[in-house]
Amino acid sequence: MSKLYYMPTKVIMGNGCIAANSGLLADMGKKALIVTGRHSAKANGSLVDVIAVLNANKQEYVIFDSVMANPTIECAYAGAAFARENSADFVIAIGGGSPMDAAKAMALLARQDIREEDLFSGVYSGDVLPMAFVPTTAGTGSEVTQYSILTNHKAETKTSIASPVIFPKLAFLDARYMEGLSYTTTINTAIDALSHSVEGMLSNRASTISDSLAMESIRLIASCFESLKNRSLTREQRESLLYASTLAGMVIANTGTTAVHAMGYSLTYYKDIDHGRANGLLLAAFLGFVEKSLPDRVRTILSGMKLSAVKEFSSVLEDLLGEKESISMDEKIK
Amino acid sequence: MSKLYYMPTKVIMGNGCIAANSGLLADMGKKALIVTGRHSAKANGSLVDVIAVLNANKQEYVIFDSVMANPTIECAYAGAAFARENSADFVIAIGGGSPMDAAKAMALLARQDIREEDLFSGVYSGDVLPMAFVPTTAGTGSEVTQYSILTNHKAETKTSIASPVIFPKLAFLDARYMEGLSYTTTINTAIDALSHSVEGMLSNRASTISDSLAMESIRLIASCFESLKNRSLTREQRESLLYASTLAGMVIANTGTTAVHAMGYSLTYYKDIDHGRANGLLLAAFLGFVEKSLPDRVRTILSGMKLSAVKEFSSVLEDLLGEKESISMDEKIK
Repeated sequence: MSKLYYMPTKVIMGNGCIAANSGLLADMGKKALIVTGRHSAKANGSLVDVIAVLNANKQEYVIFDSVMANPTIECAYAGAAFARENSADFVIAIGGGSPMDAAKAMALLARQDIREEDLFSGVYSGDVLPMAFVPTTAGTGSEVTQYSILTNHKAETKTSIASPVIFPKLAFLDARYMEGLSYTTTINTAIDALSHSVEGMLSNRASTISDSLAMESIRLIASCFESLKNRSLTREQRESLLYASTLAGMVIANTGTTAVHAMGYSLTYYKDIDHGRANGLLLAAFLGFVEKSLPDRVRTILSGMKLSAVKEFSSVLEDLLGEKESISMDEKIK
Repeated sequence: MSKLYYMPTKVIMGNGCIAANSGLLADMGKKALIVTGRHSAKANGSLVDVIAVLNANKQEYVIFDSVMANPTIECAYAGAAFARENSADFVIAIGGGSPMDAAKAMALLARQDIREEDLFSGVYSGDVLPMAFVPTTAGTGSEVTQYSILTNHKAETKTSIASPVIFPKLAFLDARYMEGLSYTTTINTAIDALSHSVEGMLSNRASTISDSLAMESIRLIASCFESLKNRSLTREQRESLLYASTLAGMVIANTGTTAVHAMGYSLTYYKDIDHGRANGLLLAAFLGFVEKSLPDRVRTILSGMKLSAVKEFSSVLEDLLGEKESISMDEKIK
């Protein structure tokens, strides 16, 4: 079987990297649609940094700041309509997975008339607004993937638009924007990234290239387990988590995710459990299940975390996640 | 300082991957310029595989098979003229670093009128023939870089065209084409790849992303040291060396090379020493020199090879390279 590796996004890393590379944004277009959530981009300094560069570059912008967590299909259409009304010719997404995923669908829908029933068809032209992404959580890896995952009320789950035409052109990684992130969000997003890399290692589509990225990502996240638990992350560790989440994004851009994410979407849809946490609740059991058929792979993954058994991994996750949600037998059977 | 990571080439891996992904070549154009050397592509089966796919796709082709080792600027212009005469609209390079590097310059010069004195200016438009590369040695990594390195008789060394516009669109990695490769070439090219990853680890432009690729590449190559020495590579090890060389190419696409390559070019130009071997002759001394200022980095590199001192690395290279060329004091002083 052939394996593929493709990840065309240009990644720019480091403190102050948006300002230091303002020319890259200048090349994107004349008027930006800035896609973000209600609060965090304003609080963590990322929005101000982006606007300062746009002003210096004499680029116009409009802001669509009503992306909710687990953004809906309706939100994507609304943002696309807003982009058209305002003649935006490029998109800047700032935030966690929700604004970034929504922004990809908006960039697509701003240029192509796609009916809702065809939105997940996978058939799109290459005509999409170019995108620059600024992640402000370290989990989703959306800044380097071709996935836009939207809440689909008709299907009662989350559904993906997956197409190389929606890879962002630029991803700016600046860990300063994560310094004020709550530990709940930091842990949930770190577990999301870890899940990406672990699932990527176990995917049929894993290759030597994706493995090398996945294992480094696993090593980096595991190096922060103690500090996550003790709520004592250093700046350098915040940066490690950010880079790890981007590496993990590069992995799933090529391997996709597996059963953990597929099952986690239902926990999020029906039980309103945060996406990363939902993966965390499932990850150790999944690893134990897979261990029977792929013991060497599981051993490699565990060794990256300096662990020797799935049971140890399970207890790391329990420490990080705290008390688990209960699901009744009725719900399990449904 | 900001760090950048960018590598837009789509990499396809696995035995028979060209035939299994014939649609990717079909999308490249109507008429291919196949760029290769005189012999190896014919002997190792790669040329036949490519032509079979082109025929099945009903794509035309012309062959330019006179690329020499360390290709010259003149060769690049000749290939470009041949592409224009034959109205080729895409390029397929098959071979080691020489045909691949020459093909990039041809793809550029076939579409843009650039005078020889401006060839290394770095200023080019994006109008370049699209390229698909089939490496048949595991060393250069040219299939995933934006470099075309040409022998420059005026400058009495090798000079690089370096531009994102000459990244290949596709790289097909099939280790079957390397099964008949001589051990001399296998060792020299493996050392070239190792040098890319080691130099990438020591570059000011190294990032977490490039480090993860570099370290995996170093581990893979080191896992073959014994078999290279004993001339007993398995098929799987041939594949490991191929993937390691591509990983190393992804590294230098982002970090560039350092003093080893710069010095090695002179050994190749003046003493006709093979490129990979030239790097190998310099690599351990360079690592020893750098150790004084970057001891942690050097320790990390050595640990990837399961070595604990530069001296041990030096003796591995001595085993692989055999008797060294002698350089007289006069030549050294010159």
